[in-house]
Amino acid sequence: MIIKNGLIVDPIDGEYTGNIEIKNEKIIKIEKTNSKNYEHIIMPGFVDVHTHALKKIDTMKASNYEFKKWAEMNFQYGVTSFLPTTVSASTDQIKKVLEKMGESVLSIEGIHLEGPFINPDKKGAQNGNYIRNPSLEELKEITPEKVKIMTMAPERKNFFKSLEYLNEKNIKVSIGHSTANYELLKKSFDKGAKRITHYPNALSTLHHRELGGTGTALYLDFNIELISDGVHCTPEFVDLTYKIKGPEKIILITDSMEAAGLEDGKYDLGGLDVFVESGVARLKSGNIAGSTLLFDQGVRNFQKYTKCSLKELAKVSSYNALKDLDIENKGRIKENYIANIVILDKNINIQQTIFKGKIVYQNK
Amino acid sequence: MIIKNGLIVDPIDGEYTGNIEIKNEKIIKIEKTNSKNYEHIIMPGFVDVHTHALKKIDTMKASNYEFKKWAEMNFQYGVTSFLPTTVSASTDQIKKVLEKMGESVLSIEGIHLEGPFINPDKKGAQNGNYIRNPSLEELKEITPEKVKIMTMAPERKNFFKSLEYLNEKNIKVSIGHSTANYELLKKSFDKGAKRITHYPNALSTLHHRELGGTGTALYLDFNIELISDGVHCTPEFVDLTYKIKGPEKIILITDSMEAAGLEDGKYDLGGLDVFVESGVARLKSGNIAGSTLLFDQGVRNFQKYTKCSLKELAKVSSYNALKDLDIENKGRIKENYIANIVILDKNINIQQTIFKGKIVYQNK
Repeated sequence: MIIKNGLIVDPIDGEYTGNIEIKNEKIIKIEKTNSKNYEHIIMPGFVDVHTHALKKIDTMKASNYEFKKWAEMNFQYGVTSFLPTTVSASTDQIKKVLEKMGESVLSIEGIHLEGPFINPDKKGAQNGNYIRNPSLEELKEITPEKVKIMTMAPERKNFFKSLEYLNEKNIKVSIGHSTANYELLKKSFDKGAKRITHYPNALSTLHHRELGGTGTALYLDFNIELISDGVHCTPEFVDLTYKIKGPEKIILITDSMEAAGLEDGKYDLGGLDVFVESGVARLKSGNIAGSTLLFDQGVRNFQKYTKCSLKELAKVSSYNALKDLDIENKGRIKENYIANIVILDKNINIQQTIFKGKIVYQNK
Repeated sequence: MIIKNGLIVDPIDGEYTGNIEIKNEKIIKIEKTNSKNYEHIIMPGFVDVHTHALKKIDTMKASNYEFKKWAEMNFQYGVTSFLPTTVSASTDQIKKVLEKMGESVLSIEGIHLEGPFINPDKKGAQNGNYIRNPSLEELKEITPEKVKIMTMAPERKNFFKSLEYLNEKNIKVSIGHSTANYELLKKSFDKGAKRITHYPNALSTLHHRELGGTGTALYLDFNIELISDGVHCTPEFVDLTYKIKGPEKIILITDSMEAAGLEDGKYDLGGLDVFVESGVARLKSGNIAGSTLLFDQGVRNFQKYTKCSLKELAKVSSYNALKDLDIENKGRIKENYIANIVILDKNINIQQTIFKGKIVYQNK
């Protein structure tokens, strides 16, 4: 397959016009044209490492068939790699999810376990009944190789032992749903927990006499997940965060729940009732309960809020997330990389999605 | 007078070795030597635009003689320009302070009125009995030319009318003791209030769904006052703020009260009892009540917290404050600038202070 006359956007090499040749899942040749006009924008396929559900298919309840369906639906939003994400649940429930998901389902790179080893004081929309301390015994049961990220709170008992164990297995520990202060966060960072879950939601606030989670994530060199739906954080907050952290450390996510892609109404998140009004999902208590964001909308929002370049947009929407997971053959428009590609119009609307060299979505 | 073989630190031209010749209050000649060794550091004299008192001499109570004495004492801390700062008080009290201070007292550049047009919900250590809305009538009474800065809260009635009036008189309106949100702060900034008082003390906190005073001061291009005593803000907070705002927008201040330079004990701030323990000044309520910081200590702290260069240190300790006040003939080590100079050893301890070309302090 040859894609002609596009504005090629690579997170490292930047933006230039050219043609791309794809063969056997890979980009095999790029020809620079230096043309002044182009027909479309060619970017690395999007990556969503924190998504609970899409259109009623929910990580906690999906069958193997539904996981596959989810991956297929996700192509229309440009997502070519993602991690279905759990919520706090019993050991058995989590093991069942891992089983049902199975192996190598299209664009599913593995799973993100959000909880259950978090802080009930910052549970957000997680079910408090399942929140608990980690133990090495339980960790062993629920961390087969397909687990890529585990969101935990450093203030939990056995956290540092767990961190050591997960580091060895190359499962990324992400700090979230936590009241940890600067000192504890610094220790966690130094010991290998290098990322922050849905910054700065469910973290302690910034104060000038205690940086808290909100300040420490900015101060230290953490990678941070960011939901750019305009609801979890205001546009100005997203822009401020971008100004401070820069384009290398931000990982866009949806944190989407089962109403994503559907109408307002009553839904479920980990056994809790969620009410979606004007696209905003809340528990009865008023707590925000995941988003209804679709990934490509988040990408457009981020560019609108920050005025970042397309090169930078390719970082926050794809490259940074993959790098954080040590996935090295995806996330660039470059020879020998896997041909996971989104073709966009000038307003960053998805025209076509290519997954492993094949057209899997075409906007009519 | 000739100062030989110093490391000259200019906030614009940077650091280089050389000799300086001073005559008739001014620097008249600088000779670059490119020497690899130097005997001392030569920096612009320090500037403190927010200081309530020093060693029991308090803006609210000082006689003309005491203002002069204050200026003389301040030379030992390297301060060659400062603004005695009021607290919320009656119109008559403020007028009396202005009268007693008189005109052209050594290094006093004018006065900073902190209050009374602030928000009682963020009064900090200000006396709530005197806090009120501004009126043009009162403003006219309390703003002779010597008033250089007025700290106000934008949520007060008549704020924008007052701002317009003060803009015309070139009195800098500084936002402080305020609960103003992003929207109101943006409007204030756009209308000419370009600075923030003792950031982020007595401002609303940063939240991801409302930037508040703490976030907006970082987000918009405000100049911000910063107390680097390690008490008002932690060292990490100072460093984070510096990373975000950079060296051009930070103005170091002491916000010192009458215990500065003295022992622990019971003191007074605007009619309120203040208890100083281990150098920390607090009201009975526990609210921090000004600092006991001496300016040169703040400068050393800032460098320790941020690891900034001497050039950057010259900005935050002198140049930025003067620029903010439109004072153009001070704050640089350069020909034709007023010879307000501090000579420091390599640990940034004051060796000598020169004010208008004369040695006014010599460390024995």
